[in-house]
Amino acid sequence: MSNEKLEELDCPWCGRGASLDITGCRFVLCPMSDEYIDIILNAVKKVDTSKVWHNTDKLSTIYRGKRIHVTDAAKACFVNAYRPDVHMVMEATFSKGCPGDSDADSFLSEDGELLNEKNIAGQHFPVLCKFAFYPMGMDGYIRHIAYVANLAIKRGVYLESSHYATLLQGDVHAVFDYFNEVMEYAEQNIPHYILEATLSVNSPTEEGKQ
Amino acid sequence: MSNEKLEELDCPWCGRGASLDITGCRFVLCPMSDEYIDIILNAVKKVDTSKVWHNTDKLSTIYRGKRIHVTDAAKACFVNAYRPDVHMVMEATFSKGCPGDSDADSFLSEDGELLNEKNIAGQHFPVLCKFAFYPMGMDGYIRHIAYVANLAIKRGVYLESSHYATLLQGDVHAVFDYFNEVMEYAEQNIPHYILEATLSVNSPTEEGKQ
Repeated sequence: MSNEKLEELDCPWCGRGASLDITGCRFVLCPMSDEYIDIILNAVKKVDTSKVWHNTDKLSTIYRGKRIHVTDAAKACFVNAYRPDVHMVMEATFSKGCPGDSDADSFLSEDGELLNEKNIAGQHFPVLCKFAFYPMGMDGYIRHIAYVANLAIKRGVYLESSHYATLLQGDVHAVFDYFNEVMEYAEQNIPHYILEATLSVNSPTEEGKQ
Repeated sequence: MSNEKLEELDCPWCGRGASLDITGCRFVLCPMSDEYIDIILNAVKKVDTSKVWHNTDKLSTIYRGKRIHVTDAAKACFVNAYRPDVHMVMEATFSKGCPGDSDADSFLSEDGELLNEKNIAGQHFPVLCKFAFYPMGMDGYIRHIAYVANLAIKRGVYLESSHYATLLQGDVHAVFDYFNEVMEYAEQNIPHYILEATLSVNSPTEEGKQ
């Protein structure tokens, strides 16, 4: 398609972009249990969302605000939903800097105190994670991806590289700490990024057997 | 981070890239039911994978090969797993052109005959989908995203734009047809793309109530 044709397209959000420091997370919780409704609703309700803008639609829950509070709330929701006997998957998209974003639907607390961390800090369980990092709009993006993969090795959460993803494993706090560090790096180096993660707990599958 | 520092990083896959015409899909099925193991295993087994390279690990299943056969197999797995009384989510990453990809782990049938379509063509059910499209390594990527969003409107599967995603809804075949058309467009216009979709069926949530 030529540039001329592209220019003709309806693109109401092109050239906008947020002026505020808004990070967002959109996630889906999937507890593979007949009790999934109770598990999800109880987990969502227990999250203190005072420092983020939040909304839940049919497909997912969205938190928007300062990065550390968005990550705090998303991690809390995941930890709240954890049950030792339930296989659960969480698909989460973290992002900042989309040219189509706007300043709407955000809440930016200047305060650095995390509201949920104290309630979940004592809970530990292993997580497997399919992880991908997408720096947008730049040549040489593969080197930022390499930096982020090397950071996973340094932080002890790297399992292996695979097709279309890096696989991570580690304690739930180590994995979310890593997400936070990746996003901190991204804020300093990349105008628009997406961090796409699918986290899994209590998988019954032995590798290669399914 | 300076370019000098980035150059020093361990990046064994930088500068590789596949020479073959390989599209891939990595996906996770999440039936929210106590019977999730049976549902997943039966669905995976019923897929005819003769025309794709395939592997299942603890986290997900991967199909690699010619685009139409990869999409045929992924759709078949989703349709096979569908039960009218089970809320299910499928998270799927479709991708082509990663500079870190290689020619390994692929099977490219030249034949255009779809192996699974005939078994699933008669099954219809509505799907909700969180959809995102990431054209990598280029300025002006937002206009390709706009093209793809407009295509969803034209094909009747567009529900709304939301934070970090476009929401789609439609019959399962219409949604996968749309994916195929997006990837066909991408093959002609974008060296490396990712199509990230989270599909949901039988959600009990009424909008805004959760």
